[in-house]
Amino acid sequence: MGIKKERGFKRLALYSESLKKVLENINAVGFEVIPVDSSIGRVLFEDIYSGVDVPPFDRAAMDGFAVRSVDVTGASETNPIRLRVVGEATTSKEFTGSVGELEAVRIDTGARMPEGADAVVLLEDTDYREGYVDVYRSVSKYSNVSLRGEDIKRGQLIFRRGHFLHPVDVAVLRSLGLGSVKVFRKVKVSLASVGSELKDIGEELKPGEIIESNRIMVSGVLSKWPVEIVRSVILPDDPVSIRNFIDVSVKDSDLIVTTGGTSLGKGDIITDYIYEVGEVLFHGVALQPSKPVLFALVNGKPFIGLPGYPVAAAISTYMFVEPAILKMAGVRGLKVPSIVRGRLVRRVASKLGMLQVVRCSVRKVDNEYLVEPVYASGAGVLSSLSRADGFLIISENIEGYDAGSMVDVIIYRDVIGYGEDL
Amino acid sequence: MGIKKERGFKRLALYSESLKKVLENINAVGFEVIPVDSSIGRVLFEDIYSGVDVPPFDRAAMDGFAVRSVDVTGASETNPIRLRVVGEATTSKEFTGSVGELEAVRIDTGARMPEGADAVVLLEDTDYREGYVDVYRSVSKYSNVSLRGEDIKRGQLIFRRGHFLHPVDVAVLRSLGLGSVKVFRKVKVSLASVGSELKDIGEELKPGEIIESNRIMVSGVLSKWPVEIVRSVILPDDPVSIRNFIDVSVKDSDLIVTTGGTSLGKGDIITDYIYEVGEVLFHGVALQPSKPVLFALVNGKPFIGLPGYPVAAAISTYMFVEPAILKMAGVRGLKVPSIVRGRLVRRVASKLGMLQVVRCSVRKVDNEYLVEPVYASGAGVLSSLSRADGFLIISENIEGYDAGSMVDVIIYRDVIGYGEDL
Repeated sequence: MGIKKERGFKRLALYSESLKKVLENINAVGFEVIPVDSSIGRVLFEDIYSGVDVPPFDRAAMDGFAVRSVDVTGASETNPIRLRVVGEATTSKEFTGSVGELEAVRIDTGARMPEGADAVVLLEDTDYREGYVDVYRSVSKYSNVSLRGEDIKRGQLIFRRGHFLHPVDVAVLRSLGLGSVKVFRKVKVSLASVGSELKDIGEELKPGEIIESNRIMVSGVLSKWPVEIVRSVILPDDPVSIRNFIDVSVKDSDLIVTTGGTSLGKGDIITDYIYEVGEVLFHGVALQPSKPVLFALVNGKPFIGLPGYPVAAAISTYMFVEPAILKMAGVRGLKVPSIVRGRLVRRVASKLGMLQVVRCSVRKVDNEYLVEPVYASGAGVLSSLSRADGFLIISENIEGYDAGSMVDVIIYRDVIGYGEDL
Repeated sequence: MGIKKERGFKRLALYSESLKKVLENINAVGFEVIPVDSSIGRVLFEDIYSGVDVPPFDRAAMDGFAVRSVDVTGASETNPIRLRVVGEATTSKEFTGSVGELEAVRIDTGARMPEGADAVVLLEDTDYREGYVDVYRSVSKYSNVSLRGEDIKRGQLIFRRGHFLHPVDVAVLRSLGLGSVKVFRKVKVSLASVGSELKDIGEELKPGEIIESNRIMVSGVLSKWPVEIVRSVILPDDPVSIRNFIDVSVKDSDLIVTTGGTSLGKGDIITDYIYEVGEVLFHGVALQPSKPVLFALVNGKPFIGLPGYPVAAAISTYMFVEPAILKMAGVRGLKVPSIVRGRLVRRVASKLGMLQVVRCSVRKVDNEYLVEPVYASGAGVLSSLSRADGFLIISENIEGYDAGSMVDVIIYRDVIGYGEDL
């Protein structure tokens, strides 16, 4: 069988070891400076310290009356204390005078505290009449006041390098008065689906040809991370096209991802070329379904070859490419898994020695989640991916789970069905 | 205190009832037809049936040799059966001849099965020599073959109306040969932050003024759903600006969302105007922190007024605006909550009768998640939102949880820290 048989899948690497090998051989990208308003979903390249106090001034934390707390000592329902109202302070118009003995200023939440006042009596604890207010409850000093720097002090560490920016974080950056921010630049990815049988939508299909569907899936899964797809092409099984794609992508991309052409078939020209020009770090993983994954460095650039069958391509995207992107994008921390614990409605078997990824549909019925394995022939796409919601991952040393077992399913969707079935 | 005191927060609506009221008074938007490749994150307006068989022809599910299963009956390690290899079939070049008695064709995964053959013997179960192959294992009919229509039959229901499209689903739509798809159009949202004290980045701050930060947060949280932000403005507390914003937004938007100006303060001009021109369905919710939420219909268009304090604005965005968007966008199903169960490191108290939303940071330490409530004065933004990862929601009838309790936290981030603290 020649060279391919020799380098074949006789020794399958464990998933954990192969992922480790990927992560050890890639590095985070450099930085760029971008407007804060464009930074949602980006990763901080620098620690962020506050340059300001927040709030920047003492302000009312509730609607009511700004008072001198000493004036309302002992005020109660039965013993109201009457203060003279000398003005009002809103967020749009501050009170520029001063609050003296037995005086009060009508104040809105967020408005700057007037000089002299040190507390706010809540609106509901007062009765306001023409020019006067009767206070029915005492307040201590600084009650219902947000003090300058109370939330954040100037110089305080807000976010560390590597922080993945959520919309609330970007709101925080704005509040600090930052107009721009230094982030890891996007990871440049070149993507190809390999196979002469693959056609694009709109092209005429000859016998044996099918419509390509992997590129949109891989790029779609990666799109929640800071990724720039440099090119996304269909490559025929033709040495010249394949060499050109690899050669140009090695020059202008941080990561090259292909689907198809990594098994032991005879038409696997891309695998041959990667063996020729690159250093193959593993080829073949004990992962079902997704065995023929290939990882190599070509001129130092990481190349991940995924299987062509769409289900295997999807699973290996989640298992290899996404963790690689997170490291290259500079993300510090743990991707939050969206896990649903539910009851398995039928038995699943697994092969010892292989990490098994079982596509499952998850439905909420009454107050319980039901987990149903979705079977399909091999790694055929449609009937499995379109009916599944997530993955049940079965370790190498477990032979499967019986019906009725409680299992954790890693959900890849944002929305799942609700007690319904297709 | 006049009209505002009367319509005030004396009767707070329960959260569940007020959300129900929002959902009862909004409707899904109409449809548009878009290219399939732009449909990730969109919602199907129509049921999708397959117009094709998948796979479209019988094909090899593994690399190996296409054979007549009857020819290899009884083949074993000790009793190999020798077949004559008459050609090869790859995904790029099918074998156009026929497989006769004791003949085989070298075949790649995905390649069309040649006429006459009805099974594939795996490569590893053979020994290939010049022109011949020795088969060491028998196969039954259709072994390692994906039959035409096996995954999906022409006419089969694939997705229902209301399905939120994940990248794998779009790959499926492509495989079906669909070039375009009918989806719910995006929900048009007009957004305003109300308050004369609010300035944009780059503007000079006078005493009492602060930088606006709510719009990016609200639109950022909604951006994972099919939403088009029609306008996103800062409105001063000025009746003319506010009337203009409402009047134009009612005409060209599906939903109007404002932050600020919904409490009982004196400068709440937007609330006055909504009471004047709209039908207020509730104002004030037993939700902490986020009491002053207002929901109204203005000329039949839904208006959601959120509190101005950033933490309250963020919480009410998740609690009211996001569920409203899901219904208006036509989504059928359940948003998958990203829940982490962890151990509370200190006691949290809650007020009976209020639904309490506690911001918490979550860290993984050893094999356990630790949940730490993040306190800040009132609903001040920075020190709480930037340090929290999710919400612990405490029902109206629970007074709090003791340190050491196991609690569920709804994570709003994609990435959380890993055993580290700021």
